Amino acid sequence: MPSAPTVKLNNGKEMPLVGFGLWKVDNATCADTVYNAIKSGYRLFDGACDYGNEQEAGEGVARAIKDGLVKREELFLVSKLWNSFHDKERVKPICKKQLADWGIDYFDLYIIHFPVALKYVDPSVRYPPGFFYEDEKVVLSKTTLETTYHAMEELYEEGLARSIGISNYTGTLIMDVERYAKIMPQTLQVEHHPYLVQSDLLDLCKSRGIAVTAYSSFGPQSFIELDMQSAKDTPLLMEHDTIKSIASKHDKTPAQVLLRWATQRNVAVIPKSNNQHRLAQNLDVCSFDLSKEELESISGLDKGLRFNNPLNYGIPIPIFA
Amino acid sequence: MPSAPTVKLNNGKEMPLVGFGLWKVDNATCADTVYNAIKSGYRLFDGACDYGNEQEAGEGVARAIKDGLVKREELFLVSKLWNSFHDKERVKPICKKQLADWGIDYFDLYIIHFPVALKYVDPSVRYPPGFFYEDEKVVLSKTTLETTYHAMEELYEEGLARSIGISNYTGTLIMDVERYAKIMPQTLQVEHHPYLVQSDLLDLCKSRGIAVTAYSSFGPQSFIELDMQSAKDTPLLMEHDTIKSIASKHDKTPAQVLLRWATQRNVAVIPKSNNQHRLAQNLDVCSFDLSKEELESISGLDKGLRFNNPLNYGIPIPIFA
Repeated sequence: MPSAPTVKLNNGKEMPLVGFGLWKVDNATCADTVYNAIKSGYRLFDGACDYGNEQEAGEGVARAIKDGLVKREELFLVSKLWNSFHDKERVKPICKKQLADWGIDYFDLYIIHFPVALKYVDPSVRYPPGFFYEDEKVVLSKTTLETTYHAMEELYEEGLARSIGISNYTGTLIMDVERYAKIMPQTLQVEHHPYLVQSDLLDLCKSRGIAVTAYSSFGPQSFIELDMQSAKDTPLLMEHDTIKSIASKHDKTPAQVLLRWATQRNVAVIPKSNNQHRLAQNLDVCSFDLSKEELESISGLDKGLRFNNPLNYGIPIPIFA
Repeated sequence: MPSAPTVKLNNGKEMPLVGFGLWKVDNATCADTVYNAIKSGYRLFDGACDYGNEQEAGEGVARAIKDGLVKREELFLVSKLWNSFHDKERVKPICKKQLADWGIDYFDLYIIHFPVALKYVDPSVRYPPGFFYEDEKVVLSKTTLETTYHAMEELYEEGLARSIGISNYTGTLIMDVERYAKIMPQTLQVEHHPYLVQSDLLDLCKSRGIAVTAYSSFGPQSFIELDMQSAKDTPLLMEHDTIKSIASKHDKTPAQVLLRWATQRNVAVIPKSNNQHRLAQNLDVCSFDLSKEELESISGLDKGLRFNNPLNYGIPIPIFA
């Protein structure tokens, strides 16, 4: 069974370079999907309050542990703090609720999902809360990113999160985190694919010892099913000649080449698949190497093209402007 | 004599929509340049510690006041806090030094130049300090942007700065300023030209009542003299067919069209010129109107292309990554 190499975080913990992303995994199939992924060798699962499937993911984990497929300490379970819980006093309670949903007592990594603070929504009223408060309106909170970050540090100190991270932060925000952090983030999770290469951001993270995880490694693919126009207008990376010809040279799939391009840049990946065969293929992406020229030709596809921008969903929060 | 219309700031003050930018104005000619610009009708001067010519600018102002061309209260004098003075206790002393250099007792607008905090440099040792500390090394300060912003608010409350602003801040940083500000910034100054249209950022500022000032309104032009490769590789806006044909239709210069495009977007401009004739032309850019179609065709030149990025000067501070 293939298993992914790990990257050592700045606190000494090891994080698998290849994991399974739970975004858009159906509630109905989520428990089985997680169970089967564990069976296929996956150890890292990347979840979030916002994905709305943490209970089901936890069921899959529990069954795998019960069946002796894996031990808790062999897994690396990731979740994220949603925007509606940025207020200082909301961070620990929601983290505990999420842990209860998963049926575990610590996250291996807990991440600030967006540098966006929204007005609190009681989980008994609406969960997950999403971007809109009521009547399709976005209502902001005044809690600063620093305040929320310090609450994350408390989770770390109490052991509820063994590592902490940030997501969708830009370079200038990371430089501000560095000013106020008592504990530097272990990871940054961002959109990253050959149309959005982000070399400057990667260089910054490398210089600060922050490991980077890519989401949407296949580019437009994930956003077509969300009916996003810019994704539909962009040639699929899976069908791009550059990717296809490199894939055929290595006798690998385009998806494997896209994931290997990331992991060779030392960027962790979290693809998802509902297909058992592709699940195994995606995990087996560190057993071949792309040449320097191949890596560069893939990076040369950069267009600075970002899909997962709140503005693209009609949410008036220009975090990337 | 032409005079520029003003924009009303969120604190009720009026700021001229067209001013004179002092970046790269030679020390030898600066006093005369400012004097002549006042004579030509300019009322706003955009200076900064980093431009290294505040004393000379102040001499030009003093002479113009002495000669009865203008009164202090008719001028709108702008300066900026340099990165090396972000530490809380450094803000007021350096602002006072800059006021003394100008020979005035308040700035109409005082701006955080970059969202970058560098280690303090004593002005008696090196002034302006620039980005590099010693031995070509960038040395950061741990002072957060919030701390520096609160020190700016104190200048405002004491009347040393009648308005306060930020510069080179991105959308996500502005959203964080909004969380901690007691006094919202009156203005944002950013690079803005048809190759960097920044509509999302402008929308954000509009929604928050923050006036926007453009620097580098002519695009690559200013950066060619700095020998910047990306500027040399980009067609000059002044010679771009779209701009030239609109200019000839209105019997204006390409520079006037570029400035009018900005001011019609309600973006203030601060061109500089050493030529008396162009000085007058640049000020006279609100006496004609571009059509909606013309504005859109100019905005259509957008490439998301930024020149004034510290990385482009070999400074490892990725504020726009």
